Amino acid sequence: MNGAEALIRTLVNSGVEVCFTNPGTSEMHFIAALDSVPEMRAVLGLFEGVVTGAADGYARMTDSPAATLLHLGPGLGNGIANLHNARRARVPIVNIIGDHATSHRIYDAPLQSDIESLARNVSGWYRSSATTAELAGDAADAVAASHQPPGQVATLVLPADVSWTEGASPVAARPRPVANEVSGDVIDSIAKVLRSGEPAALMVGGRATRERGLLAAQRVAAATGAKIIGETFPTRLERGAGLPAIDRLGYLAEFAMAQLAGLRHLILVDAKSPASFFAYPNKPSDLVPDGCKVHVLASGSDDPTAALQTLAEALGAANADIELQNAVRPDRPTGDLTGETIGNALGAVLPDGAIVADESNTSGLWTSGATAGVPRHDWLTLTGGAIGFGMPVATGAAIACPDRPVISLQADGSAMYTLQALWTQVREDLNVTTVIFNNRSYAILNLELSRVGVETPGPKALSMLDLSNPDIDFVALATGMGMAAERPETAEDLTDALERAIAEPGPHLIEAMLPGRW
Amino acid sequence: MNGAEALIRTLVNSGVEVCFTNPGTSEMHFIAALDSVPEMRAVLGLFEGVVTGAADGYARMTDSPAATLLHLGPGLGNGIANLHNARRARVPIVNIIGDHATSHRIYDAPLQSDIESLARNVSGWYRSSATTAELAGDAADAVAASHQPPGQVATLVLPADVSWTEGASPVAARPRPVANEVSGDVIDSIAKVLRSGEPAALMVGGRATRERGLLAAQRVAAATGAKIIGETFPTRLERGAGLPAIDRLGYLAEFAMAQLAGLRHLILVDAKSPASFFAYPNKPSDLVPDGCKVHVLASGSDDPTAALQTLAEALGAANADIELQNAVRPDRPTGDLTGETIGNALGAVLPDGAIVADESNTSGLWTSGATAGVPRHDWLTLTGGAIGFGMPVATGAAIACPDRPVISLQADGSAMYTLQALWTQVREDLNVTTVIFNNRSYAILNLELSRVGVETPGPKALSMLDLSNPDIDFVALATGMGMAAERPETAEDLTDALERAIAEPGPHLIEAMLPGRW
Repeated sequence: MNGAEALIRTLVNSGVEVCFTNPGTSEMHFIAALDSVPEMRAVLGLFEGVVTGAADGYARMTDSPAATLLHLGPGLGNGIANLHNARRARVPIVNIIGDHATSHRIYDAPLQSDIESLARNVSGWYRSSATTAELAGDAADAVAASHQPPGQVATLVLPADVSWTEGASPVAARPRPVANEVSGDVIDSIAKVLRSGEPAALMVGGRATRERGLLAAQRVAAATGAKIIGETFPTRLERGAGLPAIDRLGYLAEFAMAQLAGLRHLILVDAKSPASFFAYPNKPSDLVPDGCKVHVLASGSDDPTAALQTLAEALGAANADIELQNAVRPDRPTGDLTGETIGNALGAVLPDGAIVADESNTSGLWTSGATAGVPRHDWLTLTGGAIGFGMPVATGAAIACPDRPVISLQADGSAMYTLQALWTQVREDLNVTTVIFNNRSYAILNLELSRVGVETPGPKALSMLDLSNPDIDFVALATGMGMAAERPETAEDLTDALERAIAEPGPHLIEAMLPGRW
Repeated sequence: MNGAEALIRTLVNSGVEVCFTNPGTSEMHFIAALDSVPEMRAVLGLFEGVVTGAADGYARMTDSPAATLLHLGPGLGNGIANLHNARRARVPIVNIIGDHATSHRIYDAPLQSDIESLARNVSGWYRSSATTAELAGDAADAVAASHQPPGQVATLVLPADVSWTEGASPVAARPRPVANEVSGDVIDSIAKVLRSGEPAALMVGGRATRERGLLAAQRVAAATGAKIIGETFPTRLERGAGLPAIDRLGYLAEFAMAQLAGLRHLILVDAKSPASFFAYPNKPSDLVPDGCKVHVLASGSDDPTAALQTLAEALGAANADIELQNAVRPDRPTGDLTGETIGNALGAVLPDGAIVADESNTSGLWTSGATAGVPRHDWLTLTGGAIGFGMPVATGAAIACPDRPVISLQADGSAMYTLQALWTQVREDLNVTTVIFNNRSYAILNLELSRVGVETPGPKALSMLDLSNPDIDFVALATGMGMAAERPETAEDLTDALERAIAEPGPHLIEAMLPGRW
């Protein structure tokens, strides 16, 4: 068998069963070998940002990597932004980057570039496979590397001749790396801090925002009076009725500082010490209040969930009574479409087990509150700040969880970065309902313009934030990619449309026109 | 004045009068300062690949840089593929990449990444501006660096605090670097080769594919019997009635080898020694025939046009009689839409002074021949192989040359990478007519699949090259971005539509459905 087939079989042996692809000539042997390995599902994206974002969404829902298949340096370049988000989400992904044949590199052909420097930008592990004999082992190493806690992007470069040469054999999966147990000394010192009675908070992020971690954190909080604060942009937050309800740290530093005010101890659980997203003139970037000490319970390759559970035991709180979120839904909204009525529509109809990919930005201010008490669901957010993540991540999440409805909350400006994801959703008949919040603006930038101190922007500046000339018609764009789409004009109609779209199999898009800039 | 305003004023002083933007929060002071500098035109793109491709198209037509404005590493990442093409086109571009404030970097905020490694991947010159006092000088240096012959991408990183701090002053333009004169020894040795009477060809590329270079090459050929071969993917080929007609080297190695067969001398004029675009099993990458010597007349920072003129003089051919392309147009085509009839439609109506941005790929096989004798025009091609260049480059060319009609020949698969360019064409009311060649396939990959030796691809492999599930409706997609669009069904109707679209001001899209895969 050739290198390509041994590579794909090794990926399957290692638990990788989905490959998101956007191939070119140098990847044709990989493509041809797909038919020899029925266990590997191949999903085509029309742009690499769709491919890498889908792999991110898949990994967030399965804790296991999908593969990507990308075409040399420029193909990887197009996928960099969503790989940046995946790097910040700390999820496992295995990139397979096709390269020129090793003998071809001396010619500096048009598509040649420095793949390694691009790949290392977003990858915790990188290798270029040198020979067909080594390829399968390299692939097994790549999958194992992607699982290195907390999870990381692993990139394997596949030269065309390494792929097409015969004589390869697949190999078995490598042992999967396991997370470190946090030491008793660390647990004891954090327990001591929490017993001091001084104002304290647990800052919970990364892998700790799932049910088990949140329950343990809630028990710690119940026993000690500590607050729980979720990181601003969680990779995957499990929430809803019956789970602990946690507030996320505000994106706006002004709100975040209010949440943190008065704390004497901040305990990081797979989260970073809070800093503002951007810097602003004459404002501090560091959001930790004066006099507040920062402690680390778990980070990097530690197991944060186990650490929280051990901490709860150390505090005698393993069976503490805790308050869980009540089941509550907003009423079906009426009247005009606003951020608030759309949020309430979502709260009114979100079904049990939904997955929400949230890139609603300013318009989505109300969605989190309106859905706090609806049936249990997962909330995926923009971990790395590179917009264009929402529709690809929704796509990957739907591939990962075919039996769960996926809701893609999408701001108009961000939607235009990776719109091609809609095509893949149609091709794969995915249960994704996209809600476009169309305010015809980069609304966040209108807000940020004043926050950075620009009091009276001129017409040229404002035109750079304005998406109304020309207006974008997302119903037409979705229809152009074969997707059922509609534009309800009242909150009642939007609620009905949302309910119908979620109930019907296959993808749908609902465009909500919003007044004002934000 | 703050750093941002001094930066923009310095760019204008240095001859940079257009900035293609896709800004974020860290660029808000730059955006706000645009209103203080009326000489700087700002053009918004909804995706960074549009921004960087537009800067490429602008530079190809003006030989002068536009600026880009990009948002940190992920924004640059989205622009990498078209910067790769620009690097291969060797055109001047000045990237301004907003970065976090210098004091903010220690927090490793979500959008932080290694901008430098990404930027150096595509840039011949790179600097991160350290202080507001140095910023204007850095900008002047960047513009000068972009002009370094043959032209290159220069990247200046702009930290937010360097941009917002007061106390800056603009500076004057730096001296513009000039190209080297090729030495008399080189001219003499090439002249000697050409006088030998052995079969020889001039391989003409880069800056030498403009009228003056082609005329000088034609005189050399007339005096010596040498052939002229154009590089496969020229940055900007001046062609049409009254200009020398040159054949470009074929993309398919099989054709290229036939063009080169029998040569004893190949003289490179701002072009690379011919190698295949990709490697194929059991086929050579190097296309230079056995026994053929490769000589370099001009490369890198040399002036290839002056070298050709000096060579013609050395051969006593400065006033040689040469044959120029006759004026000839194909008849208006009739019948079904095919690659051939669309090519003839283009030939039948292409107006004087048109600019053609050609990303028609397999479907465009006939367009070059059908337009050889039409009135003088410029032909821009995919220099770096990173698809998604066509519509952005057409956009930038139209900004550069508002009085010239731009024709964007666009394959369907490639169109989906940077489709957002249509929105900018509408916003700026550009005279661009886009022709979509929609064969519902990555047709080139069907061809390449057999060329790499895959004789019987399976259904999974073929599905990765198939764009028919779902069909893409480009009329709907263009309409969704406010562009007039139609789908003529016969060659007669397409010819009429093309003529009408070119005659009417503003952008239009014409979708041509093609049979078969290629």
